[in-house]
Amino acid sequence: MVERNRVALIGSGCWGSAIAKIVGNNVLAHDDMFETEVFMYVYEEIVNGQKLTDIINSEHENVKYLPEIKLPANVIAVPDVVKACNDADILIFVLPHQFVKETCLKMKQFIKPNALGISLIKGFILTESDGIQLVSKVISETLGIETAVLMGANLATEVASEMFCETTIACENESYKPLLTALFETSYFRCKVIKNVAGVEACGALKNVVGIGAGIVDGLGYGDNTKAAVIRLGLMEMMKFTKVFLGNDDKSVFFESCGVADLVATCHGGRNRLLGEAVVKSMKKRGIAGVDIRLLEKEILRGQSFQGPLIAKEIYSYLKDNSMLEQFPLLVAIHRICTREVDPRNFIDCLRDHPEHM
Amino acid sequence: MVERNRVALIGSGCWGSAIAKIVGNNVLAHDDMFETEVFMYVYEEIVNGQKLTDIINSEHENVKYLPEIKLPANVIAVPDVVKACNDADILIFVLPHQFVKETCLKMKQFIKPNALGISLIKGFILTESDGIQLVSKVISETLGIETAVLMGANLATEVASEMFCETTIACENESYKPLLTALFETSYFRCKVIKNVAGVEACGALKNVVGIGAGIVDGLGYGDNTKAAVIRLGLMEMMKFTKVFLGNDDKSVFFESCGVADLVATCHGGRNRLLGEAVVKSMKKRGIAGVDIRLLEKEILRGQSFQGPLIAKEIYSYLKDNSMLEQFPLLVAIHRICTREVDPRNFIDCLRDHPEHM
Repeated sequence: MVERNRVALIGSGCWGSAIAKIVGNNVLAHDDMFETEVFMYVYEEIVNGQKLTDIINSEHENVKYLPEIKLPANVIAVPDVVKACNDADILIFVLPHQFVKETCLKMKQFIKPNALGISLIKGFILTESDGIQLVSKVISETLGIETAVLMGANLATEVASEMFCETTIACENESYKPLLTALFETSYFRCKVIKNVAGVEACGALKNVVGIGAGIVDGLGYGDNTKAAVIRLGLMEMMKFTKVFLGNDDKSVFFESCGVADLVATCHGGRNRLLGEAVVKSMKKRGIAGVDIRLLEKEILRGQSFQGPLIAKEIYSYLKDNSMLEQFPLLVAIHRICTREVDPRNFIDCLRDHPEHM
Repeated sequence: MVERNRVALIGSGCWGSAIAKIVGNNVLAHDDMFETEVFMYVYEEIVNGQKLTDIINSEHENVKYLPEIKLPANVIAVPDVVKACNDADILIFVLPHQFVKETCLKMKQFIKPNALGISLIKGFILTESDGIQLVSKVISETLGIETAVLMGANLATEVASEMFCETTIACENESYKPLLTALFETSYFRCKVIKNVAGVEACGALKNVVGIGAGIVDGLGYGDNTKAAVIRLGLMEMMKFTKVFLGNDDKSVFFESCGVADLVATCHGGRNRLLGEAVVKSMKKRGIAGVDIRLLEKEILRGQSFQGPLIAKEIYSYLKDNSMLEQFPLLVAIHRICTREVDPRNFIDCLRDHPEHM
């Protein structure tokens, strides 16, 4: 590309802000390839009596979602998604997955036709007409642009603290590789660019469900063997689901950061693991009626949402429609625990005769 | 088989005692297939003024290596390995790997010619003539018997407490599958029988080295992302080493319990993880001279040995002889940290330009 690419971030939660720090610094370091001003779309909120965009633009810190981390001053918060995306060559999507479709519809008339989308969103989108869909596909089809993905073992606060980690970027068009590497790679954030977009994205969504299972195991007081078994059985169901759902039997993607590494990180330090543990604790304290995901979201996340139960529900509806429930005992049990159909104390019993042991 | 099989355990440490509990109960449950008396070879020691074999045979508890777990009364401790193996049809090997060769040489004249060996030993054996060798191969060649292996995410104390887990059994001769399943499977110890003996065994040895790396990451205060990256890079090096060393590119074995699950359990709850963490702590307290594996064995294990540093050394010598050091930066760095050639604080720097990121 001859011209310098303008980059915009669509979203500014914890992960969005962490990636804004990397992207803001990298466009400065590669100012031959990128415009140095980066707009970041921020859903406007009032925090301590001030607009969140004003706080970010004056203090260079997202005090609500990623406190104590300084953002580069060239990252500019804007409350209007149309202003944020206008003129951008690269659109980085990092919103909760339930807001993707409506946000894309707002942007549709205003984006450059040759823009490249990159989704950092881990989840599926449930549509009435087509069942569950990959987020990258919804972005790509709604906006009519090529869409890459970035997924990996990237707990946001640790990335923001510059602790060493890896990530996987997937893009069908290999000519974008130098651009994507320049935009995201740092000495502590190591990028591998591959082609299998759908496979990478399925990993990113599915591991959130397995993370709930790992938390249930922790809540029940089991040790590392049991947790490792749940992680492995979860991985096997992720692989089988990907094969069935995408018609894609490329297992190599599960060995990338987006696969086994993200699964392991999620099952030890992720938000959905925390939910699984809290489910068991509420059950013990308040009985099965105590398993109330919305209440736990309020108690634990203070306004953000757990993606895992939504994804579990989406997967469950797909498996039910395709008469495959009995082939996925782990994913099905986790959904049913979230909906109070199964007592979390029976989780392990759901796995004893797993098809993998036959 | 028409006759009932006599089972013997060669070894009685923590893992040997945990498996003795399972095997002792299973031969009783399947007394159509097995003799109900199981001899367990115990290296005689004096514990609290009494012989360890006498304590095990009167209290049915290995008070030294697996306290507070009752063993079935049909497991009989014997201090003489010749007596233990004599007449046995199935020989379960569960000794530290450095004692395998000499123990087999003692047994050689006394075993049944058609006995089946099963190795639960995670390590390689370094020989002067042939370099590193699989333990199952040393057993098989020394005794002239077929040898299967059993490896998985099986931290011994958790297995002994009957917490749910999985394991992988590998045996070239598929006709042994029903016998092996009857001998080892319980409602909490789920067995999958596959064919790739060498692949399963290589996993079991190599993960101990990666476990040290996970401990170093913990000791250095990194979070779940970094640990997940080390686990994944370790897995990739395990796969590459297995391919080079065994000439075996069967990646499916890494998805079994012996692969990713054992690796994850080892990197979170294993003994070698503890060593890695202790290495960093000693370094901080006493400088690089403080990194003394023997001293840490005395402090932490009270007499048992860490397998990881030995295996790291064996792998290192193989890689050096084959001019492949630069392809395995993680395994090499761990060996060099154990031998004080590299400061553990530089571990992550050894990984930043890993060949996997190219």
